[in-house]
Amino acid sequence: MRYSQLFGKTTKSIPSDADSVNAKLLTQGGFIQKEISGVYNYLPLGLRVLTKIQNIVRQEMDKIGGQEILMPAMTSEDSWITTSRNGMEVLFHLKGQGDTNLVLNPTHEEVVTPLAQKYLFSYRDLPSAVYQIQNKFRNEARAKSGLLRGREFNMKDLYSFHTDEKDLDRYYEIVKKAYFEIYKRLGLGDITVLTFASGGAFSQFSHEFQTLNENGEDTIYLCKKCKIAINKEIIDTQKTCPECGNDKLETVKATEVGNIFKLRTKFSKAFNFYYLDKDGQKKIIEMGCYGFGPSRTMGTIVEICHDEKGIIWPESIAPYQIHLVGLDLHDDKIKSQVEKLYQDLLNKNIEVLFDDRIDVTAGVKFADADLIGIPTRLVISKRSLENGGIELKKRNEDKSEIISIDSLENTIYCIYG
Amino acid sequence: MRYSQLFGKTTKSIPSDADSVNAKLLTQGGFIQKEISGVYNYLPLGLRVLTKIQNIVRQEMDKIGGQEILMPAMTSEDSWITTSRNGMEVLFHLKGQGDTNLVLNPTHEEVVTPLAQKYLFSYRDLPSAVYQIQNKFRNEARAKSGLLRGREFNMKDLYSFHTDEKDLDRYYEIVKKAYFEIYKRLGLGDITVLTFASGGAFSQFSHEFQTLNENGEDTIYLCKKCKIAINKEIIDTQKTCPECGNDKLETVKATEVGNIFKLRTKFSKAFNFYYLDKDGQKKIIEMGCYGFGPSRTMGTIVEICHDEKGIIWPESIAPYQIHLVGLDLHDDKIKSQVEKLYQDLLNKNIEVLFDDRIDVTAGVKFADADLIGIPTRLVISKRSLENGGIELKKRNEDKSEIISIDSLENTIYCIYG
Repeated sequence: MRYSQLFGKTTKSIPSDADSVNAKLLTQGGFIQKEISGVYNYLPLGLRVLTKIQNIVRQEMDKIGGQEILMPAMTSEDSWITTSRNGMEVLFHLKGQGDTNLVLNPTHEEVVTPLAQKYLFSYRDLPSAVYQIQNKFRNEARAKSGLLRGREFNMKDLYSFHTDEKDLDRYYEIVKKAYFEIYKRLGLGDITVLTFASGGAFSQFSHEFQTLNENGEDTIYLCKKCKIAINKEIIDTQKTCPECGNDKLETVKATEVGNIFKLRTKFSKAFNFYYLDKDGQKKIIEMGCYGFGPSRTMGTIVEICHDEKGIIWPESIAPYQIHLVGLDLHDDKIKSQVEKLYQDLLNKNIEVLFDDRIDVTAGVKFADADLIGIPTRLVISKRSLENGGIELKKRNEDKSEIISIDSLENTIYCIYG
Repeated sequence: MRYSQLFGKTTKSIPSDADSVNAKLLTQGGFIQKEISGVYNYLPLGLRVLTKIQNIVRQEMDKIGGQEILMPAMTSEDSWITTSRNGMEVLFHLKGQGDTNLVLNPTHEEVVTPLAQKYLFSYRDLPSAVYQIQNKFRNEARAKSGLLRGREFNMKDLYSFHTDEKDLDRYYEIVKKAYFEIYKRLGLGDITVLTFASGGAFSQFSHEFQTLNENGEDTIYLCKKCKIAINKEIIDTQKTCPECGNDKLETVKATEVGNIFKLRTKFSKAFNFYYLDKDGQKKIIEMGCYGFGPSRTMGTIVEICHDEKGIIWPESIAPYQIHLVGLDLHDDKIKSQVEKLYQDLLNKNIEVLFDDRIDVTAGVKFADADLIGIPTRLVISKRSLENGGIELKKRNEDKSEIISIDSLENTIYCIYG
């Protein structure tokens, strides 16, 4: 992509919603633009990042047998009355033609349970797991922190259906592992910990995935040995590490990036969702639900992966792999070399953002590259060519090196495989 | 995918919303399931088709320089007051916290115009074109015809911004060509015609893409020579073919599958969206908008591509490339041959729906395959093996042929390239 043509350029002005690092840097970098409080537009750079996060999640859900479906944003309030959740404060209400009462789904148990009921009848149909990646809606009193707490936000939710609690327990552990694989691929593996939280009415615990972050809004109590934590909300009843009994827990700040629940029979009972067992007996379905917010995680990653100059994207979700900065482009000879390099990289299917602007100083181009935060910067200029090639600098390192144009392909191959 | 594990099986029962062929066949085939009137769930098979349609559209938009963005479903009613469209009957209204007035966008001019205004300042930034693929909302008085007229539906909208009318005209023709390429790839190329329609307040004409369909809800007047039509709404003012002057037009039924507009300055004026020209003069932006409904098109394709047994998907958007039917699976020897074939096809990255059900008759499996409508059916059974291999039958042909397992790869390669 030529930066001169990119929709959504960087800006120095501080956005009006800069109550958080992620809102500030993502807006200034040209990734998102606030529509109204808690509701954002994703510009081309931002949508590329969001899509990469979604695709990592999608791949890991597919690996554990999740089948992707798409549920609507809108449904009848009746389903929410059935589960006695129609009074939820965050529920958006609206009127359809004929004065029907509709809601925008903040979560989809009220849709997926009666839907699954249409297809899962017998023990032969179980277990089954479906997931969705789509926007959800919460009428937050105080939307804040950029992508962290929105009124319209992107969610992946996986829902699983089982013959009994034992099978739910089995699958729950499989999903846990898949979640850790996701955080690893997102570059958050080492700083994301399983956190015990309240299980609600039906289970002892639910589990959150909390990413350690000194600006995080949650307080958790961490067992450093097991890398397991306890959420503040249950620390009074669970004072020691559930794994090793350690009572010397460290108080740390963190941001929740995932939340998994054993719903057990809460929703199947509400909808009378039974199956026929091997012996012809009618039995209640056991359910699990497993949430992950791609947009919230995008915001969290920026909160953690940045410096005073801008964002530092992990390789796996950077909007482009290479930020190619062309300098001295008034010189036709240099310009044609840069253009050739750009084409060569595209031909090798490398994702390149090419700063091809002519009337912009090197300083501005470097500042924009640091703000946007693509992991690898290549600079080609009169000086770099005199020095033998192209200057390569990683966003998260200070040093740069000159590599020859001939060896560039190998170097990039070593980085991206 | 193993059919035994697929979420969303076929059903013989006639769905309650079977006012149209697409609602009936898509529901019975396990592609969609109605949530409420005009609002559908997409099951795994249905989402695969929808995604393939979206990807074809995405590729063609990218080719003409469209940049993908994602805009929110929800915005402030204020933007709609600015354009005097807040009285639109199909607008869903809702209240945010603090008694703010919000709407669900049925179309996104009210969002994209002020958004583009934040990034396009100078003639240097123009032309520019952005598109979105996402759900939109219309509070239809009478949602009907399955995916054809929904209250929540999937749309691709491309919006373009230009220095002047001439440049808008130039790009408009480019988009027209891209649309024909899309219909060609969707298998609708030969039966989809450019149709002149009302241009509203600012242009003489807009253009629809109408797919000929004897059950279509629109009436158009077709010049068979030019394959150009005139919509009923303007036939009184435009009685002859705009291309050749032919006044012998044929009255035919059709379904609208796309609609492109020169918005000219309608929205840029409402939002005071100007740019600075080369000579430093402030000038108004010219806009175009180009709509295409992936979900509506999915419904239209089923309306056209079916027989009494079920759907007949075009190759490019079929949920899977191959429907592999295993029979006589009680016989371990046959079962292991079928399983091996399934794995071989997966290893070759061929998309296969594998009917691995053991306690289901051949008749039921064939009926399901015909209903689901995957273009190529492979049957492997005791008889087919005795006859020398696998029975291959195209969904749209009556004859079948036996091919040897060894030649299968070549045969599939010839079909799918």
